[in-house]
Amino acid sequence: MTAQVDQLSGVFAALADPTRRAILARLAAGEATVTELAEPFTVSLPAISKHLKVLERAGLITRGRNAQWRPCRLRADPLGDAAGWLEDYRRFWESSFDRLDDHLREIQKGQ
Amino acid sequence: MTAQVDQLSGVFAALADPTRRAILARLAAGEATVTELAEPFTVSLPAISKHLKVLERAGLITRGRNAQWRPCRLRADPLGDAAGWLEDYRRFWESSFDRLDDHLREIQKGQ
Repeated sequence: MTAQVDQLSGVFAALADPTRRAILARLAAGEATVTELAEPFTVSLPAISKHLKVLERAGLITRGRNAQWRPCRLRADPLGDAAGWLEDYRRFWESSFDRLDDHLREIQKGQ
Repeated sequence: MTAQVDQLSGVFAALADPTRRAILARLAAGEATVTELAEPFTVSLPAISKHLKVLERAGLITRGRNAQWRPCRLRADPLGDAAGWLEDYRRFWESSFDRLDDHLREIQKGQ
């Protein structure tokens, strides 16, 4: 393995944090500045900036060029790549739900 | 934030490695022992064991009780949870693809 992280690994790693996922959820409602993004969190502005750098490296956000505001914008294509990878496993989790359905039906029959 | 990682973060973190994703792909074809899982990789058996521990903590695999073989099995429900989280963003990546489609149509028109 090289030290360079493949793109998909970078996306999954970026999603492995509740604050970063909350930032993406906020950006789904429209672009926002770092200060606006930091508001709902108890973490510091530098901590939010660090999270934004991780999201930016993973290609999940872009930042405006205006030096003062640099609003952040969601870039969802890498989320589509991640969803595409997971899609191959759908039959497995759907069959688990089916098993649960069967189990619940059995329980109801017994009542 | 507590030191305990929330379940969804644990799943995304477990997926943020190409070897771990390859192990899950292998287990999608059926259960396998650690030795069988290690075969296609150049990494050591202890390194594979470490990856398996990450996958097990994330709830993505279960291991048999037979002390000697302890075959690994895929547990896909947490992948369904991860896909469910990503699903909320589908409209964003689909609209990006739409924009690409429009762009390609424009190029074709111009030829």
